[in-house]
Amino acid sequence: MKGISLLGGPVDLIPADFFENISHNRPDLLVGVDRGAWFLLEKGIVPNLAIGDFDSLKKKELTEIEAKVSDVRYSTPIKDLTDSELMLESCFQNYHLDNLTILGATGGRIDHFLVNLFTVLKPRFRSYAPRITIQDQQNILKFYLPGKHLIKPIADYKYVGVINLEAVTDLRIKDAKYELDNFTSTYPVSFASNEFKEVTEPFELSFSKGLVMIDYSRDINRFINI
Amino acid sequence: MKGISLLGGPVDLIPADFFENISHNRPDLLVGVDRGAWFLLEKGIVPNLAIGDFDSLKKKELTEIEAKVSDVRYSTPIKDLTDSELMLESCFQNYHLDNLTILGATGGRIDHFLVNLFTVLKPRFRSYAPRITIQDQQNILKFYLPGKHLIKPIADYKYVGVINLEAVTDLRIKDAKYELDNFTSTYPVSFASNEFKEVTEPFELSFSKGLVMIDYSRDINRFINI
Repeated sequence: MKGISLLGGPVDLIPADFFENISHNRPDLLVGVDRGAWFLLEKGIVPNLAIGDFDSLKKKELTEIEAKVSDVRYSTPIKDLTDSELMLESCFQNYHLDNLTILGATGGRIDHFLVNLFTVLKPRFRSYAPRITIQDQQNILKFYLPGKHLIKPIADYKYVGVINLEAVTDLRIKDAKYELDNFTSTYPVSFASNEFKEVTEPFELSFSKGLVMIDYSRDINRFINI
Repeated sequence: MKGISLLGGPVDLIPADFFENISHNRPDLLVGVDRGAWFLLEKGIVPNLAIGDFDSLKKKELTEIEAKVSDVRYSTPIKDLTDSELMLESCFQNYHLDNLTILGATGGRIDHFLVNLFTVLKPRFRSYAPRITIQDQQNILKFYLPGKHLIKPIADYKYVGVINLEAVTDLRIKDAKYELDNFTSTYPVSFASNEFKEVTEPFELSFSKGLVMIDYSRDINRFINI
């Protein structure tokens, strides 16, 4: 079971072909979170699940979501779970997804973006980390738990960043352009702009404690100089 | 001594009036980092200092930087300091800045963005944290070391996120819309979307260990639905 979840981040960061693809090729579960639910409905695409406090929507928009989407769940961030948390809980606990790709999670307000990055660090959500991908026009983010992992290249993504999102023990990068040997830190570090040695050759990532994010990234001209 | 440093991130995230303001109202030190140095020259503005490995520039562009900028420093990230690190070191150690505002540091490649957030966690740069502001069109980021701080509202920035960028001890938010009492964590957490109680009323932030970032943020229509 594969799912796609659209959050309410800046629409111009969503991969250009997303809305066209999704209407021809639906995943098993399509989720709209907060304003993301409205973005989908605006394009005539009805998600299976809508989640949020929907504070940023007009009443008319929320009424339309409630009329069209069969499963609508309301988050109460102060008392209980945030949007992101309720979304992960619903996708993995209730809908039993194997994999979830999240869009609309980057850019815009940085406190929001960091909620989307840091939620997998919480004990309740940590086991979901390896099944989550966050994607925008320039980045594909994947999350790893302690152990040894083969990181495979993705076509057209030239750069690969290795980021320990929390304290890390014995972080090792082997067979990439820049290697790292038994790095231990009490704070997050972003090792940016690493590259694969060859376009078909994976590199080895290992660590014994912590949570590590991989950022596959590329340059996009339209973002360089408008 | 106040400085402004322009990094090479997406130009459309730089506050709209930046280039016009800077040509009329120069700071004591104007720094261009990597492609940021070229962005300034393109607008006819010559920075005092240019820093980078300049890999992303055409040879002609680098030659023009070298001809026009009186202090050009070359980073060698693999052997020594990254662009960001050499920039902080130059600004605070050599140019003795009291305060530095960094633009062009957000958006684009996420591994780059996180370098810009996480560099102040390194012991060598940690003492600079309280003197650094990172700004884009939607966000003003400030950094705090352990102690008790009054967080004052900024006009037009409705939201305020409190983010411990590393393990934190006894984090407390008092007199804000949402309070937090003696929160301790071994990993980063983003407490997003807090607000000031009144537009003239600061709130109190305190913690005994860690490094905490404040994100003043606002919604911008052009980023919501293009």
